[in-house]
Amino acid sequence: MRYPGVGKKTAERFALHSVSSFKDEDFDNFIDALHRVRQEIKPCELCGNLSDKTRCDICSDKTRDASKILVVEESKDVIVVEKTGTYDGLYHVLGGVLSPSNGIGPEELRVKELLARLKDNRHKEVILATNLSDEGETTALYLQRLLKDTDLLLTRIAYGMPAGGNIGYADEITLNKALEGRKKF
Amino acid sequence: MRYPGVGKKTAERFALHSVSSFKDEDFDNFIDALHRVRQEIKPCELCGNLSDKTRCDICSDKTRDASKILVVEESKDVIVVEKTGTYDGLYHVLGGVLSPSNGIGPEELRVKELLARLKDNRHKEVILATNLSDEGETTALYLQRLLKDTDLLLTRIAYGMPAGGNIGYADEITLNKALEGRKKF
Repeated sequence: MRYPGVGKKTAERFALHSVSSFKDEDFDNFIDALHRVRQEIKPCELCGNLSDKTRCDICSDKTRDASKILVVEESKDVIVVEKTGTYDGLYHVLGGVLSPSNGIGPEELRVKELLARLKDNRHKEVILATNLSDEGETTALYLQRLLKDTDLLLTRIAYGMPAGGNIGYADEITLNKALEGRKKF
Repeated sequence: MRYPGVGKKTAERFALHSVSSFKDEDFDNFIDALHRVRQEIKPCELCGNLSDKTRCDICSDKTRDASKILVVEESKDVIVVEKTGTYDGLYHVLGGVLSPSNGIGPEELRVKELLARLKDNRHKEVILATNLSDEGETTALYLQRLLKDTDLLLTRIAYGMPAGGNIGYADEITLNKALEGRKKF
């Protein structure tokens, strides 16, 4: 078992710290917290976002605009979009992207759950927010094909120059997206 | 006088190398090349892009689509967009961005030259490609106001998630642009 960013040396430092620097009570609380995280945090039954409830706070919030569903790859994407404070719709967490070479097909993602949710006709717009990578593109195209015969408005977030990015150092794919995607100003 | 990225230590290393490692001929050629760059490379009379001709190769190229002018901050932006190989219009290099706190107003930029060029009615679309920074935004808004009573189509490149960017680590401004700028897919 490995935590991200923790190599052999850091693990050793953590182990020594566990032995010598914690009071028994603090250490027990820590182990307890780890157990609780693992037992109590589960994907929301609707959107797949990690939550300590069967249905997460966002899905349960009646003030959110249920007409929009933002489809993201991971739970951490939800956290980041929520921090902007400007999106008031719902989410759907796929739990990854299609990646045939890694054995990840539609069954490994929460695609079936998305289709099931979309039968509820409160939802009018599906906004695809996969990352601009080969796998993100493939996943978006796959979902487009799945949803093309529905009445849903299917949109995709904008790809282009990021804040603070300098055109003089931009990569080709981003620049092409920025030029293709230009809009009346 | 300072070159970018060259501090005291690197300058010292260059100085020692100049003394001990070059043949006289190589060194004279190098000094010559520096002089020639400084004398011969000038802004193109039309677009402001650096060139060894009065009118640069892009402005002189009759096969380029003169209906479009891409307005960029710096000459290096032209180089990068040219590398994508997908843009076939003309350019206009502003030579910077508006920055009142640094004493850079419209007179310090090639704005007058842009307005003069636009009187030629071969040009139909002006694409603003300033960076997504406070100064880039200010410059774009300033140009919008200047051009709003013309028949020109004024567009702006897309801002949003860049290639390889991960939504889970994106900044707020970029995410807002990506969400606002979403398009039918």
